[in-house]
Amino acid sequence: MLKVGIFGATGYTGFELVKILVRHPQAQIVWLTTESYVGQRLSDVFACPWDFPLVAADAVAPDEVDVAFLCLPHGASIPAVKRCWDAGLRAIDLSADFRLADPAEYKRWYKAEHSAPELLKEAVYGLVELHRPEIRDARLVANPGCYPTSVNLGLYPLVKHNLLASERIIVDSKSGVSGAGRGLSLKTHFVEAHDNFSPYSIGHTHRHISEMEQELNKFQVSSFKFQVVFSPHLLPVNQGILSTMYVILKEPLREADLVELYREAYAGEPFVQVLQSGQLATLRHVVYSNRCTISLTRVDDTGNVIVCSAIDNLIKGASGQAIQNMNVMFGIDETAGLV
Amino acid sequence: MLKVGIFGATGYTGFELVKILVRHPQAQIVWLTTESYVGQRLSDVFACPWDFPLVAADAVAPDEVDVAFLCLPHGASIPAVKRCWDAGLRAIDLSADFRLADPAEYKRWYKAEHSAPELLKEAVYGLVELHRPEIRDARLVANPGCYPTSVNLGLYPLVKHNLLASERIIVDSKSGVSGAGRGLSLKTHFVEAHDNFSPYSIGHTHRHISEMEQELNKFQVSSFKFQVVFSPHLLPVNQGILSTMYVILKEPLREADLVELYREAYAGEPFVQVLQSGQLATLRHVVYSNRCTISLTRVDDTGNVIVCSAIDNLIKGASGQAIQNMNVMFGIDETAGLV
Amino acid sequence: MLKVGIFGATGYTGFELVKILVRHPQAQIVWLTTESYVGQRLSDVFACPWDFPLVAADAVAPDEVDVAFLCLPHGASIPAVKRCWDAGLRAIDLSADFRLADPAEYKRWYKAEHSAPELLKEAVYGLVELHRPEIRDARLVANPGCYPTSVNLGLYPLVKHNLLASERIIVDSKSGVSGAGRGLSLKTHFVEAHDNFSPYSIGHTHRHISEMEQELNKFQVSSFKFQVVFSPHLLPVNQGILSTMYVILKEPLREADLVELYREAYAGEPFVQVLQSGQLATLRHVVYSNRCTISLTRVDDTGNVIVCSAIDNLIKGASGQAIQNMNVMFGIDETAGLV
Amino acid sequence: MLKVGIFGATGYTGFELVKILVRHPQAQIVWLTTESYVGQRLSDVFACPWDFPLVAADAVAPDEVDVAFLCLPHGASIPAVKRCWDAGLRAIDLSADFRLADPAEYKRWYKAEHSAPELLKEAVYGLVELHRPEIRDARLVANPGCYPTSVNLGLYPLVKHNLLASERIIVDSKSGVSGAGRGLSLKTHFVEAHDNFSPYSIGHTHRHISEMEQELNKFQVSSFKFQVVFSPHLLPVNQGILSTMYVILKEPLREADLVELYREAYAGEPFVQVLQSGQLATLRHVVYSNRCTISLTRVDDTGNVIVCSAIDNLIKGASGQAIQNMNVMFGIDETAGLV
Repeated sequence: MLKVGIFGATGYTGFELVKILVRHPQAQIVWLTTESYVGQRLSDVFACPWDFPLVAADAVAPDEVDVAFLCLPHGASIPAVKRCWDAGLRAIDLSADFRLADPAEYKRWYKAEHSAPELLKEAVYGLVELHRPEIRDARLVANPGCYPTSVNLGLYPLVKHNLLASERIIVDSKSGVSGAGRGLSLKTHFVEAHDNFSPYSIGHTHRHISEMEQELNKFQVSSFKFQVVFSPHLLPVNQGILSTMYVILKEPLREADLVELYREAYAGEPFVQVLQSGQLATLRHVVYSNRCTISLTRVDDTGNVIVCSAIDNLIKGASGQAIQNMNVMFGIDETAGLV
Repeated sequence: MLKVGIFGATGYTGFELVKILVRHPQAQIVWLTTESYVGQRLSDVFACPWDFPLVAADAVAPDEVDVAFLCLPHGASIPAVKRCWDAGLRAIDLSADFRLADPAEYKRWYKAEHSAPELLKEAVYGLVELHRPEIRDARLVANPGCYPTSVNLGLYPLVKHNLLASERIIVDSKSGVSGAGRGLSLKTHFVEAHDNFSPYSIGHTHRHISEMEQELNKFQVSSFKFQVVFSPHLLPVNQGILSTMYVILKEPLREADLVELYREAYAGEPFVQVLQSGQLATLRHVVYSNRCTISLTRVDDTGNVIVCSAIDNLIKGASGQAIQNMNVMFGIDETAGLV
Repeated sequence: MLKVGIFGATGYTGFELVKILVRHPQAQIVWLTTESYVGQRLSDVFACPWDFPLVAADAVAPDEVDVAFLCLPHGASIPAVKRCWDAGLRAIDLSADFRLADPAEYKRWYKAEHSAPELLKEAVYGLVELHRPEIRDARLVANPGCYPTSVNLGLYPLVKHNLLASERIIVDSKSGVSGAGRGLSLKTHFVEAHDNFSPYSIGHTHRHISEMEQELNKFQVSSFKFQVVFSPHLLPVNQGILSTMYVILKEPLREADLVELYREAYAGEPFVQVLQSGQLATLRHVVYSNRCTISLTRVDDTGNVIVCSAIDNLIKGASGQAIQNMNVMFGIDETAGLV
Repeated sequence: MLKVGIFGATGYTGFELVKILVRHPQAQIVWLTTESYVGQRLSDVFACPWDFPLVAADAVAPDEVDVAFLCLPHGASIPAVKRCWDAGLRAIDLSADFRLADPAEYKRWYKAEHSAPELLKEAVYGLVELHRPEIRDARLVANPGCYPTSVNLGLYPLVKHNLLASERIIVDSKSGVSGAGRGLSLKTHFVEAHDNFSPYSIGHTHRHISEMEQELNKFQVSSFKFQVVFSPHLLPVNQGILSTMYVILKEPLREADLVELYREAYAGEPFVQVLQSGQLATLRHVVYSNRCTISLTRVDDTGNVIVCSAIDNLIKGASGQAIQNMNVMFGIDETAGLV
């Protein structure tokens, strides 16, 4: 039985981890930390039946657990990860702090010097479908961002097979409000978000672009560097991301061949569903599951293709993927707790 | 052209007043005050096309306007109302500060001594359908609370005709989230309120009970005093209140007779719609309008009746009713700006 | 491994059964029937990854399975249940056809003669918390209606202890739209139901009243017969029921004592959560779970009490409860597949 | 006082026309036709206070009115328009039947021979901001589609000034469910659309592409023909369209210059709002209004620009625009009834 601790259990990703872990057959929660609710129980903070005590982060003993999940704001995660590293336990970081291999990129996007660049080298980017072998042995896994998970799974087969004609990729993404976290803001006030739909940070400004470009260029065999034009939008639902991606292929492929290519690329993957020609990915395919559902639409005979990729931002885009990483790291059935 | 000022224009009721006033044929906005957004324009604060400047409350000259609306928190409204009174202008207060005629009741429910009890005597309770004559001459109108508006309009004909068999009235109300205001709280966070439905302050604790009981007992001709058991619930919509009320009549009436009784009681009222027997009031009847829609259902032959009463909490339950009051006070067509 | 068949798998309750069964450790789906989608696969009908074939009801062999679930319209369920009975397999009927023990009551509420009254005697009402011993040996279980599940669990401890002062119980219920099924109607059109909230079949007309009164009177020790005044409302969410119930106790109890009484009544129940004094049941406590969450609020010192009871209408109110019944019938851990 | 008739008043666009006309100071409803509700009143069909009788289309006298609105399905509108034409009254057609000037294009997109090609020549495409002079004298106005309204207003200034570098324009649109009409379908069932977000008819297949390309190419001064890659998505709200459009300019412009260019292009337009640099168009800017709100975002220094354009699909995208057309045709203040 794997012993698990969660730093920052009272945000949405932390609570989602709890929900998965209480039904996980081979893991058990040992401690949950909180900043705002020390001394309370989980059932005081969320409408749920679980009475786990909530303690301060410095009150827990990291070495009581086999693995720690970090659900802390970026920046705040670095010292906590160091603490885990020094205590010799394995860590899965859900913040952005260890996702970018290059500290210069971290500084560029997060406007701060990375305070533990030596650990950056140890971190494995935890998109399981692309990096499973490295994850098995990793002591530190950087769990991918929600938008990059949907985008990179949606584009990976095209990049891997060097099929893209242009370095410019247009990604129009729509995310449920839980992606903005549990902190209070006018943007996430019910009355402001309900019956509304709004773009934000569009163009080349959203931080998740760095992960998309890092990973796409990692698998890129052409000389050019991908540039992602990225438009996130806030969707009036709690959970789910749909990314609609516009790409141009070097040469037109039939839709059925595209489907075949994707199904081969993801053969055996328990959490990737490639829809048959004619079907389109929707939020309904994925919410409350760890799946990524992908559809492929041929626009015309000149290579224009639309890829739709859907995930649940809190599950495959965060906590479900984190558990998937844990399962891989500890040699457990990869789907344990996730079906 | 009536000149209008609004204290507290950057909350939902203040903004709703603006939306009505910009289309009102006989009124124009002179100034809008704000606490949090001084120096900005209305279009910076709300997604709207109106560029009105927002100023601090102490920067405006009350006597530049004919009437001021006060959209301030209870307690904060009292000094602002005094300022209007002293400046000789008419005031319509959307807070709870002048709704209860008895300062002891104010203290009991709002846990504070009323700081201008001399003005309480001047205030008219602005439920137009019940108090039109007094409102015409009032210098200070206390605009009713949203829940009491739906409840008192729903019960008034029964009370007036002394038909109720019992002093205990069960009111099960459901309100959209805008009723909780624009201030930030976990309760109004999108992710918490969406796909949720939750009772709050149920029993005999919600402050609006005081207005319900005050008004019902004002028109009561029997010896007993009404006691309202009141259960408000938070509904995942922006606007609208539906109150489902359970009463027992002294003797059973046919449904059609009940409808007739209500239609007579509200004959000529431009904003009250009494549905025919067999139809039920819904939010859809009233949202974005100043209407109150009422339905009557006979449960059995022993006098059990269910009254459903629906309003838009921001319009008939707040800003629309405030404009209706203004129209009455200034002898303008009562429906001006409201259709 | 229990072999399972589902009659009517392409409605919401049928699909919900599939979702539970694919993760159930001791049961496997053998066949799924459909009326409208014969020859298609489940993934053609719902956005899901499961490719189960859908066959016509008369094309399946009942005796290939150990247990059949019937998710058919009332009336249509009777012949299918008979077929199961004759084939010697155990059946769990999610329709209303076998819930009322008295065929006269069936006729009164469902406006049709019951065509298999001899089987009515065999049917056990499958509210596990009230009828566990009989369910163990039942060959035919009538799975309770969604509203009665929330109401009867919410009132049972008071009835059992003979605490209610009055035979009249007011139940104000609010249900998500999935309760109306997957059939098309204007009432369930998105644009009509979204941002709306509407009462329907209020008073003493909704068929589920028959189940409430049957069960409450079964456990009633006083001479009077309960009469439920029942107001269902349509809530703009997919899943969830909250029932707000107004009762009068023979003598006032402290809120903490009420909680204690309920916790004793439900001691050891894996799916009933009784909230501590001061907390209120909400949809968020229960959606996507098989839980029933109950809160108790003392209104005043004269015995007025408000009980709030929340369930997920598709899970504890239908398919989850059906699986719970299956687990009990076959001696499996009662929570298998349900946590 | 203009006399108005509506063919097909019991769909969403017909009802929206009624809502505008009852408050229009210079127009009055003379008759409303229906197919499904003959003999009923409007208040039986929609939760509203208006008791207009509903009659069959062949029971009305076209010449009793000055103008008729046609809210009929495409195909069905042609004979009704002919009838109006022959009766000598002016007609505003909200269907797609007269939007495409070229009958071959009509056949290509609507899969049917146009049965009144002689009237096609008479029809003016009623996007007021682009065709105001022709609309003044038109006897037949083809009211634009909802998506094309948002797209063409969003791109017109760039096209008019010949600034686009490429004939391929990517349009990612999101529409509320009322765009799919009041007819029943699984796609618009509440439970299927709520908490969902789904692409449909993406690529180069949606019929509205024909209007986008016709109008953009009408104002195009370059040699190339625009090709619109169009991805509509169903948004879980009732009303509103946001189109996110990805274009490449021949040479990069500063964001402020783009805003200036648009503001000049739309100078004096009462219903177009061009946001200042840094603001983004959202549904909240436009729902329940006849406005189109546009924002401009410069992506990088190579000419990539994102245009966001928002409208209310039922108002500026249908019935509001139809009234705007009526106002222009009859020399009434263009904003009458619309503010």
